[in-house]
Amino acid sequence: MDDKVNLAEKIGLLGEAYSPGIVGYLNEYKLVVVKVRGEFVWHKHDDTDDFFLVLRGRLTIQLRDRDIELSEGELFVVPRGVEHCPKADEEAHVLLIEPRGTVNTGDAGGELTAEEVEI
Amino acid sequence: MDDKVNLAEKIGLLGEAYSPGIVGYLNEYKLVVVKVRGEFVWHKHDDTDDFFLVLRGRLTIQLRDRDIELSEGELFVVPRGVEHCPKADEEAHVLLIEPRGTVNTGDAGGELTAEEVEI
Repeated sequence: MDDKVNLAEKIGLLGEAYSPGIVGYLNEYKLVVVKVRGEFVWHKHDDTDDFFLVLRGRLTIQLRDRDIELSEGELFVVPRGVEHCPKADEEAHVLLIEPRGTVNTGDAGGELTAEEVEI
Repeated sequence: MDDKVNLAEKIGLLGEAYSPGIVGYLNEYKLVVVKVRGEFVWHKHDDTDDFFLVLRGRLTIQLRDRDIELSEGELFVVPRGVEHCPKADEEAHVLLIEPRGTVNTGDAGGELTAEEVEI
C-alpha cells in the first residue's frame, strides 16, 4: 500500500453491496471503499466519528431526526454516538474513513457485519 | 459543521493556491481542501502520515526517489517522515486529511505556511 490508489479501480474489485474493502491506511485509520445499495442497519459508534464521502451515485444517511442526502463529491461526518443508517435506492460508491478495528455495524452487529479485508 | 459538505462549493470559497481551508473534522483530524498550482515546498511531517485525494485536475507528489502522479479520484498517503513536494502545472483541487495542528509546510516553514482557517 505504498503506491497510489485509484478508487474506481478498487471499487471494481468489490463484491456485493456492504462488503467493504480496505484500500489504505492513514496512521491508525483505515481507508475503506464500499458499494451501497438498499438499506444498511441502524447503528452507532460510541468511540469514533464516521466519515462518508460519496464517490458516485447518491447516498442517504438516515439519522433519527433527519436525513442527510449526499451526492457525488459530498461528505458527511456522523458524530460519535449518533445512530445512523445508510441507504441508497440505486448503487452508490462511498469512501469511509474510520479507526482500524471499527466494526462496520457498530453496536448493532448482525449478518451485515464484515471482516476487515484489504483489496 | 454538523451538516454535509459539498467539496466543490467549499473550493469555490478558497483564495489563491496553497491557501487551505478546513471543511470539517473527523475526531482529532481536520478535513482540508486546497487548490494547488505550481510547486509547493519540500517538507515532511515526522509525526503523521499525510492523505491526499485529488478531486479535480492532476497532482504530482514528488518524493525524493519517484513521482506519484494523481488524477481525479486517486489518492496517496505520504508516510510520516517522508519528504515530499506537491506540484501541479494546472490548477488541481485536493482533499487533505491530517491531525489538527499539522502545519502545511511541515518542517520546512517559510512563506507558504498557512494558519488553520475554517471555511
